[in-house]
Amino acid sequence: MNKLIILDKRPKGKPSIKDFKIISAEKPKIKGTEILLKAVYISVDPYLRGRMNDSKSYVAPFKLNEPIQSGVIAEVIDSAHSDFEKGDFVVGNLNWSEYQTSSGEGLHKIKDTSANLSSHLGILGMTGLTAYLGLTEIGQPKEGETIVVSGAGGAVGTVVGQIGKLLGCKVVGITGSDEKVSLLKSTFKFDHAINYKTTKDLKEAVKNACPDGVDIYFDNVGGEISDVVLANINKHARLPVCGQISLYNSTEVSLGPRLQTILLTKSATMKGYIISDFSDKFSAATAQLTSWLSDNKISFAETIVEGFENTPQAFIDLFEGKNKGKMIVHL
Amino acid sequence: MNKLIILDKRPKGKPSIKDFKIISAEKPKIKGTEILLKAVYISVDPYLRGRMNDSKSYVAPFKLNEPIQSGVIAEVIDSAHSDFEKGDFVVGNLNWSEYQTSSGEGLHKIKDTSANLSSHLGILGMTGLTAYLGLTEIGQPKEGETIVVSGAGGAVGTVVGQIGKLLGCKVVGITGSDEKVSLLKSTFKFDHAINYKTTKDLKEAVKNACPDGVDIYFDNVGGEISDVVLANINKHARLPVCGQISLYNSTEVSLGPRLQTILLTKSATMKGYIISDFSDKFSAATAQLTSWLSDNKISFAETIVEGFENTPQAFIDLFEGKNKGKMIVHL
Repeated sequence: MNKLIILDKRPKGKPSIKDFKIISAEKPKIKGTEILLKAVYISVDPYLRGRMNDSKSYVAPFKLNEPIQSGVIAEVIDSAHSDFEKGDFVVGNLNWSEYQTSSGEGLHKIKDTSANLSSHLGILGMTGLTAYLGLTEIGQPKEGETIVVSGAGGAVGTVVGQIGKLLGCKVVGITGSDEKVSLLKSTFKFDHAINYKTTKDLKEAVKNACPDGVDIYFDNVGGEISDVVLANINKHARLPVCGQISLYNSTEVSLGPRLQTILLTKSATMKGYIISDFSDKFSAATAQLTSWLSDNKISFAETIVEGFENTPQAFIDLFEGKNKGKMIVHL
Repeated sequence: MNKLIILDKRPKGKPSIKDFKIISAEKPKIKGTEILLKAVYISVDPYLRGRMNDSKSYVAPFKLNEPIQSGVIAEVIDSAHSDFEKGDFVVGNLNWSEYQTSSGEGLHKIKDTSANLSSHLGILGMTGLTAYLGLTEIGQPKEGETIVVSGAGGAVGTVVGQIGKLLGCKVVGITGSDEKVSLLKSTFKFDHAINYKTTKDLKEAVKNACPDGVDIYFDNVGGEISDVVLANINKHARLPVCGQISLYNSTEVSLGPRLQTILLTKSATMKGYIISDFSDKFSAATAQLTSWLSDNKISFAETIVEGFENTPQAFIDLFEGKNKGKMIVHL
């Protein structure tokens, strides 16, 4: 038998376990030159929330009563395709499904198995690329500059901070628990980390952590945290907008201080992106990340949840910040 | 005798004639290698409002009881400086003063007198550079794209629209009177112009004028007009922020829909600037503007106010949109 997780209802506000349904089906069989895949790791990511609405976000919305899709690592367990053999591992945008067939299109075979398999969803996958390319292409860090990262304890945030340090910058992280504050400072070598939930005066905390102002604000969360950081930017600041997790569950338009005045007086650049904007730079970026990883210059955190049926809850937990680093489901 | 206009009080909200004072003084005399200048044209510009506050905007605030400064064209009427002769005309950032002495530093001698003298404050001066460099460097227009310009009937707006047309784009202007709508369409060849004050549904009007969406939004005004335009931007839109005239007189922080979500889902770039950011490109830009002007490919509008003592009122009138194109005081 096979199990699939489908979108049963479009979430209103915060997603609920009831918005998803686990259904059973026949185990699929390959046709023509297809391959049969068994999922091993499923990536859950905040951006998926946007695709659960009935409006175009980055990409087309998920369809009701069809499986959710995200980054998945799977093992090839049957193959009629000349490029794939039984026992190969692949990564790609696949269904939340124990088994599935594929034409092989869009899948990448994991050839270098020296790193942990799951790292191909994280530091060597979309997460690493998102951090590296957002920071270097939009942030354009220069030695000695100050970078502030929000959502710093998340998958992308932990990588951004480490790359910032490798490039000679001062790095300040904003996160939501004391445990993550410690992790950022000890494991990931952030210069400062601020727990926004317990800090009495976030304005003051950011100002104190950044006496020379903020040159780059790598934004994963949006909302009031971003308002505070933006009040501290320097002339010619660069502001990559990678995510807005604090707003993904909003049911109304979120109001805040208009940004244009700050961008104008600071000659600052704010740019949103999706990683596919930089697809021509993927191989160079992956080579750099692989090299840092094998030289132990960069490390990564994973929160691994066991059991396919726990995938919806793992996704929901992202919005409570229950993950440290990359949230992955292991089957 | 000499007359000077000083900042008597810092305006609260909209500037009032009472915030300025016209004072009389001795006509100054040159010392050392100075030159004596007689003002001919004074430029009044919205950005000066920022310098009237006691907080750093682009540049240092004006000091109380000292003359306002802006772009001024002046005649050299006495000179002990080897680079300047009696009868030369210069342009530079000078005092609102009938007469003043100068070391000559920062002044540009107007050598090519084929164009109107006043054009060196407008199309061939800061206005032209602001329009050309903001549009080309940040907007990066490509043939066939749609540009929306707010404050379209103002000094910068009329030039941006014309350059957009010269570069093969579709140009839509937003302005505040039917008279300016006509001017934009007839004299400046905008494809569409919208009177935001009389249009019942600005959202609908922008949507109808831009059926292919907005690729570049050149923003001079900010506020709700910008909210509407931003709701219509295309993937990879570029958003130069040149001015925010609707907010310059705000005494409170202006709230609006948070922009980051739009920038994120559209992979859009918003960048504020001040023209000095692009000073390395001034000579090439001036050459291009001069060539377009002498080929009659670009025209410009001026609203010329007569009389030095009317300078504060001319400045105040900018915020009522009483100018068509560049507002200049002639002495």
